[in-house]
Amino acid sequence: MTRRALPQHIGFIPDGNRRWAAHRGLPKEEGYRFGIEPGLALFELCKKLGIPEVSVYGFTQDNTKRASPQIQAFRAACVEFALEIARRGAALLVVGKYGSSQLPDELRAFQTRQGEGIKVNFLANYHWEWDLAGLAEGEIRSREVSQLDLIVRWGGGRRLSGFLPVQSVYADFYVVDDYWPDFRPEHLDQALTWFKQQDRTLGG
Amino acid sequence: MTRRALPQHIGFIPDGNRRWAAHRGLPKEEGYRFGIEPGLALFELCKKLGIPEVSVYGFTQDNTKRASPQIQAFRAACVEFALEIARRGAALLVVGKYGSSQLPDELRAFQTRQGEGIKVNFLANYHWEWDLAGLAEGEIRSREVSQLDLIVRWGGGRRLSGFLPVQSVYADFYVVDDYWPDFRPEHLDQALTWFKQQDRTLGG
Repeated sequence: MTRRALPQHIGFIPDGNRRWAAHRGLPKEEGYRFGIEPGLALFELCKKLGIPEVSVYGFTQDNTKRASPQIQAFRAACVEFALEIARRGAALLVVGKYGSSQLPDELRAFQTRQGEGIKVNFLANYHWEWDLAGLAEGEIRSREVSQLDLIVRWGGGRRLSGFLPVQSVYADFYVVDDYWPDFRPEHLDQALTWFKQQDRTLGG
Repeated sequence: MTRRALPQHIGFIPDGNRRWAAHRGLPKEEGYRFGIEPGLALFELCKKLGIPEVSVYGFTQDNTKRASPQIQAFRAACVEFALEIARRGAALLVVGKYGSSQLPDELRAFQTRQGEGIKVNFLANYHWEWDLAGLAEGEIRSREVSQLDLIVRWGGGRRLSGFLPVQSVYADFYVVDDYWPDFRPEHLDQALTWFKQQDRTLGG
């Protein structure tokens, strides 16, 4: 049983955009664009801390069943976030169903990892069944994404919601009750402090 | 978004047996036998509440790398628990690697579901990779285990530790800080009360 210092791979589930907007009397879809700046701030924090790899839940195939203004809004927010971190310097991989109109064109260049720097796996038009279906041909479709040490979810939900099931099997799961647009750097600090206190047994 | 009443399938991760023993100055392996009575009490509670299906984490292939007295002790505890719930009335299925000496002989009869009553999926000599490897032949090996609504883990750990990754994708995750041998019925009551307050979105 050993205690670890810094997680080598963190997963982020930035949930609560719609509830954040509704609490402010805004249309639900307005919430997504207020999630971009927090995402960039979190990205910069992870770079500064020297986290080698992060995975970010953009949107899922299930999400594309939502009302049309919401779909347009989260697609636009995901594209803006992804292109901006690529511009700032990241080894960016988009993980999701490629042969589908639901994947924004701007993200297609990242079907193979592009760029140098912190590894960012951005899940867009992702679905856990699509991912695991790759095993029928020998490997999961997210095969380039390593095992997660820590998952941080905003918005209070205590579930994975289909997030990278294979990479999540041994990950510690930290929940922030605040909605994602209310992200503060302390959230990550608290998650990392908590993480250091967890035992790592891997069943041994 | 709908709110649910009773979970139709609950997963239980009864962790903390060794730490419980160590806190009492007992050898670690002594902890496991103190987990049997709590398991039977929880089983009776679920039957009384009308929960249709439960999955219980017995032991994993990783666990069989532990010290020999521990292996003997958790195997014995798992056999005693499983045979007793079969005797009391359950539709019992043992899920784990069958062609292996690590699976106790007494459990081999349950490689196909036996008996009538509440469905109990008991994971013994289980490993998530073994489970998913079934997809290469078309289906996961735990194909008879339905999707989980709720997972309850004792012992404070906030991770799945390889527990049924496919069935866990949408499950709500409730953590009890007490060690498993200190199980009290209130733990389940609290988990169910919490569960009713969770929103069910499935990404829609």
